[in-house]
Amino acid sequence: MKRKITLKQIAKELDVSISTVSKALRNSVEISEDTKQKVQAFAKLYNYRPNNIALSLKNRKTNTIGIIIPEIVHHFFSKVIRGVELVANQRGYNVIVGLSNESFAKEVINMEMLANGSIDGFIISLSKETLRQQDYHHFNETINQGMPIVMFDRVVNEIQCDKVIVDDFEGAKNAVDKLVNNGCNNVALITTKDYVSVGRLRTQGYIESLKNHNLELKSELILKLDDNIDYEVNLDALEKEIQQLFKANKTIDGIFAVNELYALTAMRVASRLGFNVPNDIQVVGFTDGVLSKHSTPSLSTVSQHAQLMGEKAATLLIDRLENDDDYENYQTQIIASELIERESTK
Amino acid sequence: MKRKITLKQIAKELDVSISTVSKALRNSVEISEDTKQKVQAFAKLYNYRPNNIALSLKNRKTNTIGIIIPEIVHHFFSKVIRGVELVANQRGYNVIVGLSNESFAKEVINMEMLANGSIDGFIISLSKETLRQQDYHHFNETINQGMPIVMFDRVVNEIQCDKVIVDDFEGAKNAVDKLVNNGCNNVALITTKDYVSVGRLRTQGYIESLKNHNLELKSELILKLDDNIDYEVNLDALEKEIQQLFKANKTIDGIFAVNELYALTAMRVASRLGFNVPNDIQVVGFTDGVLSKHSTPSLSTVSQHAQLMGEKAATLLIDRLENDDDYENYQTQIIASELIERESTK
Repeated sequence: MKRKITLKQIAKELDVSISTVSKALRNSVEISEDTKQKVQAFAKLYNYRPNNIALSLKNRKTNTIGIIIPEIVHHFFSKVIRGVELVANQRGYNVIVGLSNESFAKEVINMEMLANGSIDGFIISLSKETLRQQDYHHFNETINQGMPIVMFDRVVNEIQCDKVIVDDFEGAKNAVDKLVNNGCNNVALITTKDYVSVGRLRTQGYIESLKNHNLELKSELILKLDDNIDYEVNLDALEKEIQQLFKANKTIDGIFAVNELYALTAMRVASRLGFNVPNDIQVVGFTDGVLSKHSTPSLSTVSQHAQLMGEKAATLLIDRLENDDDYENYQTQIIASELIERESTK
Repeated sequence: MKRKITLKQIAKELDVSISTVSKALRNSVEISEDTKQKVQAFAKLYNYRPNNIALSLKNRKTNTIGIIIPEIVHHFFSKVIRGVELVANQRGYNVIVGLSNESFAKEVINMEMLANGSIDGFIISLSKETLRQQDYHHFNETINQGMPIVMFDRVVNEIQCDKVIVDDFEGAKNAVDKLVNNGCNNVALITTKDYVSVGRLRTQGYIESLKNHNLELKSELILKLDDNIDYEVNLDALEKEIQQLFKANKTIDGIFAVNELYALTAMRVASRLGFNVPNDIQVVGFTDGVLSKHSTPSLSTVSQHAQLMGEKAATLLIDRLENDDDYENYQTQIIASELIERESTK
């Protein structure tokens, strides 16, 4: 493989200093015409590509936004990225994406890598492991170094920065209100363990709705699943958990599930057990996924407006990058969710 | 907003050269202890983060792979990225993703940005605009500068590099063979204009299958759609085109569509026109999408094994990065597609 030639190698070949090579490549008046021509010819000969980042240490404006997301095979995050892209392109910014794969270490590595001159600021949704470990030092360090962060969806109170969230609590409350108003008296909740903030808030919305309707909160109707298990590939395990829930609670007539996978699986398990959706059991999910509208029956969902979240996050970040005065005047923007009624509810 | 301090600013504050600051931060023996302590203390005070890329101009090994894909809201590309990630992580590499949004200019900008020291090599699927314009100078330049590229799915013969493709021709031929063997005599093809290589190869597979079965190739049964129109948002336009195809050709009893959207839309239009799928019309798509198995009826597809494509691409790239001897010994790996039979075929 042909090797890249470096500034240092050019300097050595021509017996001049690195600084001279660098200046000659930038056509500096400090360097003689003769030397400039020699350096530039040599660089051209060897296809030398100046490291723009090195050369622009002065202002370090890259016009690039770094997005760190927990996983890529997820319609919600894809839509957020599309929203970020839309605004970024309008305002002359580029976007690059790093993946944490729900790992704390990978989140840190990605941030380190991108913060080293590749980007001007971050848009981030936290990994599950970070939320579990509650170790946020990498965010604080980045912000302290003057690089702004906008968090979306999975955010934490501990970090002072701009945030964009969906109204998880209200959205969940509205969904359960709908089920109760549709005649459900025993609404079960399928949710995640509490360390993921969105799961916790959606659980609280469920509890609040029951309280408002003077319905008893029954702990046996709340199924808290371990979000570390990849149920997409362990669908059997998920089905077993949900089947167990139905079998232990024969009076369930409504399901609120905090994501698409749980909701679709609940519908399938219900059908298999001989229940009709929506006549016997009504189901609402919380998602922007594509499957909801294509499933049979189609799934009623609380839509998160993922693309709008991305647009808002990009706007907050670019505004901050372009207005130096805004120091620490942090905003949390709440995107209103929307209950989309389809066939899984009456 | 708190400003980042730069090497230049440190140098100015301490009245030393940039080179001295840089060397002091790297603890160089060329710099006196006194100066080193002063520089390091100052840098610490202002949270100065050395630009690793600038400091490592010498070997420039970043252990990072750059992926450039045409669009993010696309299950196929998400799965490829997952495959790349899997192998990259195993072999100690990080992954960052740039998006071309099917634009030539954005593809070039993304490559420029990442090639400037952020990554060691590229994994790329070409944008539609690049394929249409047939301008590949940015790939050649990158490769000439010693940065390897692996192309996947949308590749071009004009560029000498490693490639991973699916057997589009064979996959399409098998799909049409299946339809004909299932009793279809008038198989229509819904495809894209010819500049996207995969569409062209799938079209050739269709033609070959008809020839092998001594079936007449009827141009009126081939619907070539303009791939520049985003039919995801212009679904009505797509439905109209397909409805027109059915209405003009009442004997159609099979459909082979080169992607999921065309296939699912064809099923929906067929149902609306009173045809039963699969009894009256059988449909096969070409895709790794998630909707195929969740649609009603579920869609038979030629699976591309997207994740495997990503794994192979990452392996080719990392092998090349780690073996300098392999110069120009380029490989094209072909991933065998697989016909997955679901309810839309008999």
